[in-house]
Amino acid sequence: MAHAPNPPPATIGGASLDAIGTPALLLDIVKVDRNIARLRAHLDALGVLFRPHVKTAKSIDVARRLFPDGVGSITVSTLAEAEYFASAGFADITYAVGLAPDRIARARALVARGVTLSVLIDTREQATALADAARAGDAMPGVLIEIDCDGHRGGVVPEDPALPEIAGILREGGVEVRGVLTHAGESYACRNGEGLAEAAERERAAVVTAAAILRAQGHAAPVVSVGSSPTAHFARTLDGVTEVRAGVFMFFDLVMLGIGVCTVEDIALSVLATVIGHRPEKGWILIDAGWMAMSRDRGTQAHPIDQGYGLVCDIDGRPFGDLIVGDASQEHGIVRIRPGSAAGLAELPVGSRVRILPNHACATGAQHLSYHVIETGSRMVVAEWPRMGGW
Amino acid sequence: MAHAPNPPPATIGGASLDAIGTPALLLDIVKVDRNIARLRAHLDALGVLFRPHVKTAKSIDVARRLFPDGVGSITVSTLAEAEYFASAGFADITYAVGLAPDRIARARALVARGVTLSVLIDTREQATALADAARAGDAMPGVLIEIDCDGHRGGVVPEDPALPEIAGILREGGVEVRGVLTHAGESYACRNGEGLAEAAERERAAVVTAAAILRAQGHAAPVVSVGSSPTAHFARTLDGVTEVRAGVFMFFDLVMLGIGVCTVEDIALSVLATVIGHRPEKGWILIDAGWMAMSRDRGTQAHPIDQGYGLVCDIDGRPFGDLIVGDASQEHGIVRIRPGSAAGLAELPVGSRVRILPNHACATGAQHLSYHVIETGSRMVVAEWPRMGGW
Repeated sequence: MAHAPNPPPATIGGASLDAIGTPALLLDIVKVDRNIARLRAHLDALGVLFRPHVKTAKSIDVARRLFPDGVGSITVSTLAEAEYFASAGFADITYAVGLAPDRIARARALVARGVTLSVLIDTREQATALADAARAGDAMPGVLIEIDCDGHRGGVVPEDPALPEIAGILREGGVEVRGVLTHAGESYACRNGEGLAEAAERERAAVVTAAAILRAQGHAAPVVSVGSSPTAHFARTLDGVTEVRAGVFMFFDLVMLGIGVCTVEDIALSVLATVIGHRPEKGWILIDAGWMAMSRDRGTQAHPIDQGYGLVCDIDGRPFGDLIVGDASQEHGIVRIRPGSAAGLAELPVGSRVRILPNHACATGAQHLSYHVIETGSRMVVAEWPRMGGW
Repeated sequence: MAHAPNPPPATIGGASLDAIGTPALLLDIVKVDRNIARLRAHLDALGVLFRPHVKTAKSIDVARRLFPDGVGSITVSTLAEAEYFASAGFADITYAVGLAPDRIARARALVARGVTLSVLIDTREQATALADAARAGDAMPGVLIEIDCDGHRGGVVPEDPALPEIAGILREGGVEVRGVLTHAGESYACRNGEGLAEAAERERAAVVTAAAILRAQGHAAPVVSVGSSPTAHFARTLDGVTEVRAGVFMFFDLVMLGIGVCTVEDIALSVLATVIGHRPEKGWILIDAGWMAMSRDRGTQAHPIDQGYGLVCDIDGRPFGDLIVGDASQEHGIVRIRPGSAAGLAELPVGSRVRILPNHACATGAQHLSYHVIETGSRMVVAEWPRMGGW
C-alpha cells in the first residue's frame, strides 16, 4: 500500500492560550516527543518491535511523531481506527479487541486494501466464524489468540485446552495463526512502581508459554505480543517476546503518575479552562470545564492521592499545590483544595485561565474534536490537529 | 429570524438492529414523545412556559419533537449549542452556564443575528464586563442572575447583597436585567421520589424571593426560571415562576430511575452491543461496549441499586433481571450478575446482541456521533440523526 504524503500540520496562526476559546484540549508536543523517545530507547535496549497503541491519540498527526518516516506498525482498538490510519498509509495494524464475527467482512476489506492486519480472538466460535469465512474466499487477516496473564479481562490461560483447539480450527480453515497477545490490565492496580516489574514478568511468561504450546503443535506463531503502559516501562527482560504495545505513555496522566510510571512534568495533555465564578464561603472556584471537557473518569479515586476530576495548574502548566477539580457537572468544574490539605486557595479572578491535568488521557481526549498543539514554556498554539471518533 | 424549513430525518433504509454496526446509540422515539408529553402536560397544568434544555440531546431532530411547529424556547449549556440551534431557527435561547467575560462577543453576535438570548451571571466582575461592553455598542443579550437555592454549585443566595449590586451595575451600563434563574442540583441526591416535592418548593421559593428583591429595586425582572428534571416532575405549585427548564427527561436514564422520576420502560436511550467473549469460570460475558460507548459515568454508584456501567437488556429492550455491565475498559464491557443476586447468567453466545441502558443519558449520548432512531417493539432503524459537540 502506497504511503500517503505527510501533510504539514494545520496551523492556526499563532493564537495564544490567553485568547483561544475554552475549554480546549492542549497537547505539549515537546513532552510527547520526550515520552516517545524514553519508551523507544527502553524497548530498543530490550530488542523488541515497538507497536504503539493509537487509541489514546486517535490522530494521524500524533501517530506520525512515533515513527522517523511517518508510518509504522500500530495497534488499534476499533476497525474505524484501522480504516482511518490505513488511509494515511499505516499498513501494519493489529486490532487488539476481540473480534465480533460480523466484523470479519470489514477486516477482510482492509486486507484487500493491502493492510497487514492481525485480529484477536479467544473462543472456538470466533475461530469457526473465521475458518468459515476463509473457505468462502481469500484476503483474510492473520489471527492472534488472546492470552489471559492476570485474570483481568478476556483471553484464555496458556494451559487451557481451548488454546490448541482454537489454533486447530483456524489451521483447518486455512487461516494464519499469527501468534499470541496479552495485556497486563492488572498492572494498573500497582502503586508507585511497586510490583510493576513482577507484573511485566508475569505478562511475558504467560504469553511465551502460550507461544511454545502453539509451536509444539506445529504453528509458526511468529508474533508474541505484550503491552500495557505500566509494564512496558518496567519490564527488565522480554525474552521470547517479539513486540510491545502501549498507548497512554505518549501523553501520560494522573493515573500513570499515581502508579509511578511518570512525573507530573511528563504529562503532555491538559484542558485549558476559564474561571467563571467564586463561592468564597465554600472555598470554591467555578470553571467552564466540567465532565464534558474532562470526562467522567475518576481513575485516581482509589489512589492514595485522589485527584478528583483533575489537578489544577496555571496557564503555563505549573501545578497549584493541592488545587483539584473536586466536582464536575456537564459544563461546570468546582475547583477546591484537596481535602485534608492546609494549602490556601489560589487567587484566580473571573476570566482567569487555568490548565487541568486529566486522570485518564484516553477518556479526556475522547471528549474533544481536536488538539491545540503547544510547546513547553510557550503560550502560542502552533497547530490544531483533528481527532477521529466513532466505530 | 426566519425559521429554517424542517428537513425530513435522514433515513437509513430499514437497517435492522440485528445488522447495524456496534456499539451504536439507539433512541426509541416513541418513548421520547411520551416523556415529552408527560412533562408538558404537568407544566401546562401549572401554567408556566416550558423551556427544555437541549444539552442532553444536542440534536435539532430531537429538539423538533419538543414543539408542535418545530421550534420554540430552549436552554443550552454552550454557545456552540446556541449557534447550532439558532442556525435551525431556534430564536429564544437561554445560555444557562455562567458567562466567561471573553464570551461576550460571541453572545452579541447571536443577538445581532436576531436571537433573543439570555446569559447567566453571578458576580460583580461579570456584570462590569457586560456593562462595559454595552457602553461600546448595542446588540447585547439580556441577563439572568443565578440564584443558589441549595448550595449545590454557583449562584448567589437571595439575601446576598451582591444580588442588588449586580443588578445595579447592569442597569447603570444599560444592560437588561431580565430576571433570575436557579437549578436544584441537590435534587439528584434524593432517592425514590422522597423529598423531591420539597426540593421543588425550595427551588421555587428561592428564586421568587430573589425576583421580589430585584423588583423592589425597580427592575422589571420578567423571567423567573427554575429547572432540573427531578424537581420539574414533582413540583406541586410554581406560583411566581415563569418558566421551567429540564433536559434529561426526554431520554431518562438509570439515575432518574434510582431517584424515582421514571420507570425502566421510560428509558428511551440505549447502547446496542455485541457479545465478543466469555469467561464462564468468572461469570463474565464480554461485549464490545466499554466506557468509550457508555461513558465513564457511574452515577448510580452511591444508589441503593448500583447499576455498574449500565443495565443489560435483550435486543428488544427487555432487561435481564440483575445483569449489568460490571466493569468497562475502553472498548470492552464485562457483563455479570449484580453482586448479591441469585440470578443466573443469561445464555448469550458470541455474536449475540444486547442493549445497555445508561446511568446518565447526557454522558452516554456525548460518546456518540449520531442516534439510530427506533420505535418501541421494532428492530428497524427508521432514521439516523446527527449529534453536535464541542464548544
